[in-house]
Amino acid sequence: MRNDGRRPNELRPLESIPDFLEQPHGSVLYAQGKTKVLCTASIQEGVPRWLYGKGRGWLTAEYSLLPASTGDRTDREASRGKQGGRTIEIQRLIGRSIRSITDFEALGERTLWLDCDVLQADGGTRCAAITGAYVAARRALDKFGLSKVFTGSVAAVSVGIVAGEALLDLDYSEDSQADVDMNVVMTGDSALVEVQATAEKTPFTRARLDELLELAAEGIEELAVAQEEAVAAPRG
Amino acid sequence: MRNDGRRPNELRPLESIPDFLEQPHGSVLYAQGKTKVLCTASIQEGVPRWLYGKGRGWLTAEYSLLPASTGDRTDREASRGKQGGRTIEIQRLIGRSIRSITDFEALGERTLWLDCDVLQADGGTRCAAITGAYVAARRALDKFGLSKVFTGSVAAVSVGIVAGEALLDLDYSEDSQADVDMNVVMTGDSALVEVQATAEKTPFTRARLDELLELAAEGIEELAVAQEEAVAAPRG
Amino acid sequence: MRNDGRRPNELRPLESIPDFLEQPHGSVLYAQGKTKVLCTASIQEGVPRWLYGKGRGWLTAEYSLLPASTGDRTDREASRGKQGGRTIEIQRLIGRSIRSITDFEALGERTLWLDCDVLQADGGTRCAAITGAYVAARRALDKFGLSKVFTGSVAAVSVGIVAGEALLDLDYSEDSQADVDMNVVMTGDSALVEVQATAEKTPFTRARLDELLELAAEGIEELAVAQEEAVAAPRG
Amino acid sequence: MRNDGRRPNELRPLESIPDFLEQPHGSVLYAQGKTKVLCTASIQEGVPRWLYGKGRGWLTAEYSLLPASTGDRTDREASRGKQGGRTIEIQRLIGRSIRSITDFEALGERTLWLDCDVLQADGGTRCAAITGAYVAARRALDKFGLSKVFTGSVAAVSVGIVAGEALLDLDYSEDSQADVDMNVVMTGDSALVEVQATAEKTPFTRARLDELLELAAEGIEELAVAQEEAVAAPRG
Amino acid sequence: MRNDGRRPNELRPLESIPDFLEQPHGSVLYAQGKTKVLCTASIQEGVPRWLYGKGRGWLTAEYSLLPASTGDRTDREASRGKQGGRTIEIQRLIGRSIRSITDFEALGERTLWLDCDVLQADGGTRCAAITGAYVAARRALDKFGLSKVFTGSVAAVSVGIVAGEALLDLDYSEDSQADVDMNVVMTGDSALVEVQATAEKTPFTRARLDELLELAAEGIEELAVAQEEAVAAPRG
Amino acid sequence: MRNDGRRPNELRPLESIPDFLEQPHGSVLYAQGKTKVLCTASIQEGVPRWLYGKGRGWLTAEYSLLPASTGDRTDREASRGKQGGRTIEIQRLIGRSIRSITDFEALGERTLWLDCDVLQADGGTRCAAITGAYVAARRALDKFGLSKVFTGSVAAVSVGIVAGEALLDLDYSEDSQADVDMNVVMTGDSALVEVQATAEKTPFTRARLDELLELAAEGIEELAVAQEEAVAAPRG
Repeated sequence: MRNDGRRPNELRPLESIPDFLEQPHGSVLYAQGKTKVLCTASIQEGVPRWLYGKGRGWLTAEYSLLPASTGDRTDREASRGKQGGRTIEIQRLIGRSIRSITDFEALGERTLWLDCDVLQADGGTRCAAITGAYVAARRALDKFGLSKVFTGSVAAVSVGIVAGEALLDLDYSEDSQADVDMNVVMTGDSALVEVQATAEKTPFTRARLDELLELAAEGIEELAVAQEEAVAAPRG
Repeated sequence: MRNDGRRPNELRPLESIPDFLEQPHGSVLYAQGKTKVLCTASIQEGVPRWLYGKGRGWLTAEYSLLPASTGDRTDREASRGKQGGRTIEIQRLIGRSIRSITDFEALGERTLWLDCDVLQADGGTRCAAITGAYVAARRALDKFGLSKVFTGSVAAVSVGIVAGEALLDLDYSEDSQADVDMNVVMTGDSALVEVQATAEKTPFTRARLDELLELAAEGIEELAVAQEEAVAAPRG
Repeated sequence: MRNDGRRPNELRPLESIPDFLEQPHGSVLYAQGKTKVLCTASIQEGVPRWLYGKGRGWLTAEYSLLPASTGDRTDREASRGKQGGRTIEIQRLIGRSIRSITDFEALGERTLWLDCDVLQADGGTRCAAITGAYVAARRALDKFGLSKVFTGSVAAVSVGIVAGEALLDLDYSEDSQADVDMNVVMTGDSALVEVQATAEKTPFTRARLDELLELAAEGIEELAVAQEEAVAAPRG
Repeated sequence: MRNDGRRPNELRPLESIPDFLEQPHGSVLYAQGKTKVLCTASIQEGVPRWLYGKGRGWLTAEYSLLPASTGDRTDREASRGKQGGRTIEIQRLIGRSIRSITDFEALGERTLWLDCDVLQADGGTRCAAITGAYVAARRALDKFGLSKVFTGSVAAVSVGIVAGEALLDLDYSEDSQADVDMNVVMTGDSALVEVQATAEKTPFTRARLDELLELAAEGIEELAVAQEEAVAAPRG
Repeated sequence: MRNDGRRPNELRPLESIPDFLEQPHGSVLYAQGKTKVLCTASIQEGVPRWLYGKGRGWLTAEYSLLPASTGDRTDREASRGKQGGRTIEIQRLIGRSIRSITDFEALGERTLWLDCDVLQADGGTRCAAITGAYVAARRALDKFGLSKVFTGSVAAVSVGIVAGEALLDLDYSEDSQADVDMNVVMTGDSALVEVQATAEKTPFTRARLDELLELAAEGIEELAVAQEEAVAAPRG
Repeated sequence: MRNDGRRPNELRPLESIPDFLEQPHGSVLYAQGKTKVLCTASIQEGVPRWLYGKGRGWLTAEYSLLPASTGDRTDREASRGKQGGRTIEIQRLIGRSIRSITDFEALGERTLWLDCDVLQADGGTRCAAITGAYVAARRALDKFGLSKVFTGSVAAVSVGIVAGEALLDLDYSEDSQADVDMNVVMTGDSALVEVQATAEKTPFTRARLDELLELAAEGIEELAVAQEEAVAAPRG
């Protein structure tokens, strides 16, 4: 039995508020349990200099934790003057994940910016950022008649081994005592995009890896359904 | 007649959602028209090294615009590696404003962090940040039995001369065509804390300055009432 | 009675040495009491990239305290690797002040650089920098036949409430015990350009604000006279 | 048939020169095909401040590409003033990998520094860095009588899908056309430490993932043998 | 015959204004022709952490070119966010030169800061900085009863080969066409402290080097006399 | 008699491994005693923007100490976020030295990058970097049919006064107790390129300087011979 009464293969409650903001091209306030991420998508004309004139677009993702999102305050990266290693690693992951379903010819010479700002962090923020960023980006692309830019959907979920048991969608208290921690990114039709498994305490077996992959696939199926609802929600 | 139908001395609609987040010590999502600022307050044990052992506390405010808050995306300061001049100027103003009502002996050797993250920007963000930060800070202090740290309340509002007329609470479209732009910070009992008036286009007269100060005082009276309601709202 | 025997509404002794240096386009060593600022003006052909081809010029002001200017040595910003918040705030103020009297069409596609380096600091350095920068800039513009770029003159002075009394042109010892501290920038024909009033200790009334504004206006009248003399001094 | 005539499940030629340098505590020049990494290990007394007095050690890994290592010169990170995202991601991976076999109580209040400098890059540099760092670290620990700090061995290898075929130990030309790219870190007794699989072009199936994991396990078995030889080589 | 009518072995006119500023512990405005350097010396209690408790002092020199000092404006290092290579090289040279005559035991646990800010640059600024820094430092040490800290005096001069002729004390126009450029630092009793000779265009012979060394020794003898006068000048 | 049994005028054993790496345009692993420097040369099409269209090339040298090269680990400059003063000074010296024999018209609009990475440091690293960089650069230029770019050869050696005796090619233990430390750069036909002499402890006489210059000239003659052998070695 988990802290919050969930079954091992149960996601936390999901909530999406599309068009949470009016000014960005696309936005969603995406919550998975207490983890809340504000995802926005901005479509800019033009591409970085080294892509000029190739008829292809570009995509950049950025991620940040608001200082108080973690309860105990974390230093603001802008005032420390650089992004930490964890932030850089996460935003590279978000970017690769969304790029895997992006047709850059269809985007044309435009840049798609995805900003994922974690308002409240309770585990699984990088996965929630990917799941939410897809929704924000889709709504922005649809608004500009660019629906064909995405060739499918993509979502992510964390899984892990805690006290010997495989669990879906770890919250912070579970994550901090996990033996194995794994993030899985998959498309809406169940293909793998990214697998990152890490032995936090002790190395693990292939059997454990397989068990976690199953659990993740189940979770992502549910997330994909929720994403489609949010994408289809009426304009705010 | 203004764009959105307001009278010259009318504030935009105000909305405060106290305890918008559960994990920070205090939080409020504060909106004034389309301008939305997430203000959080964090109380940390300890003070900067140069204040050790003096029995007094410290207060630091930080401000940021989320990249997509402005519609056209603005670069993220954390990834550019430094805070811009405007950000630095604003967070210094927020800090001075709240310090003016803070009794640092009553705070004791603690640091009060105020984070003001602008989720959507439509003019008046620095003033909204001050008005909201007071609410977030009060709720955090009250929760920890530190209500006496604040000796009063403080709020801020922008005023300006647009097309020859003095207006209260400028939105972005008004602000960008103002001849004079002024931010006024006052306490709940109508004393001045900070006055910053700038001739954006042409120098102005004392009479104009006086007119704007009157308008600001009216606006702040209303803001102070809204603040007290938000401070008194039941715990989320 | 003030430390140095001045009346409340008396400026410190003023001294301007125009053409203190031979190589910059314009220069003045400007002293107000012990505060000494070396102001230089440089006119560069060309403007920043985003202004190309618009037929308008640009103006940038930079400010710095020499490390030993303050008696107790202050760290050099170039070796710390960034400008502090106070420096950034001040150089933005200097820039806005001089821009308020600048006709950028008349300047043409040129950049006017104003450098204000404080050789000795005894209070009021930002105001002295504005007053001196105007002189250095005027002399540089005159030398290049660009006298029409400035549509008037501009000067600045600090005022404040010290021990309950309104004083003009605070020195460092007065400034550090002031209850209210205010910097006023005005044109030579007595229009307001910038007003920045701050309650250092306790919030203040409108009446006090009015009193300080009167005092500042008096002081600036005298400064404007001194500026005109320095502008008109024979070439070195 | 691969470019260099290797079978799909064949590693490139391995070469280790332990004690390539005399001054570092441990060093090895480790080559896998044309990829050459100089790995050094340094044991410093003391730990970072936040670990003081807990009786536990610390481990930090750093990675860099020498500018000319890539044939076409890459900018030096020290002169650009910051480490790129790829570097940060890689050195975090090296650190986690070696930490998974490290007993920090046995290390005591010491810091183990691992430096992996790629002299020549031809694919698989992060894996070669892990494989080599283990050897350098073991030799340093053995020299100081700290052999018990490591609870096992660890090595890494890249695998990927190229033109539809699963290949072991990709060189640069293979890596740059791979559809799926995967790095696997395992202990000498075949437990998983880290799995990072990325769809470079198109999402992939579980079956493909399984195939790649098998291939990696085979490769790591061979690497573990080569590591033990290098660890046991006579002192230089 | 040189531009300004000097003989090959003639220094430019020297001028020292000791106590040019009142607040720093020691100061001199030192001019050699049009080159003008403001040198200040500050004595701080305490030393860097790694010198704690050893009974010895420390000395740090910093150098900067004011942006307009060069006629054509140079970017300000504080706003670019780092000191250039030339600056770093020069301030290291100034530091080494003054350290060569410093008795750190006699200084005790204090730090002597030397700041050399070039107000106007016309060649030879690093040498003028050394010559002036000695004077500022001596006056500061004498004021605090620390005269024994210096075991002698030190001065510097540039020499070079221009159009085939060996010249003393190059100005900017000479320096920029020199074939060989050399800076020599010597004590008041004619011992060498630092010799830096550089072939700007073509390698040079030992005979040329010897000729330049003679010329430098002559120049430094004169500089040492001027320094003693400035050191002995009555307090301002 | 020296530590390692050398005569005062004896170089340490020299070893050059040309083409130590296959991918850079030119490379040599150059050792002088325990000091080992990996020098690579890269020829890039194009020049910095300010040289466009002038038909001339450019040369940049970079230097770094690998963290563990010094036995006791030195912080990595890339992770500290800036190059130290010593590094900057050294890479400027390497650049000037090689430029002194470079015909930039013959190079054409290309940039020659020289990277000198010290794998192991035992004194004299800057001189070894110059001596090795010449070899790497020559081999790269020869490979591309650009042999005429160099108008001669250049090498460097350190000399110094240790315990009253003039010594050639100091190792680290000698260098750290030297009274005078001097680096001399000369061409293959015995002309001086750069002389940098520093009194580490006490100022020195002209006679001492002359003695050291003789010693250096002898050493460089031998180095020039070794360089020619390495340049002429068959392709790897």
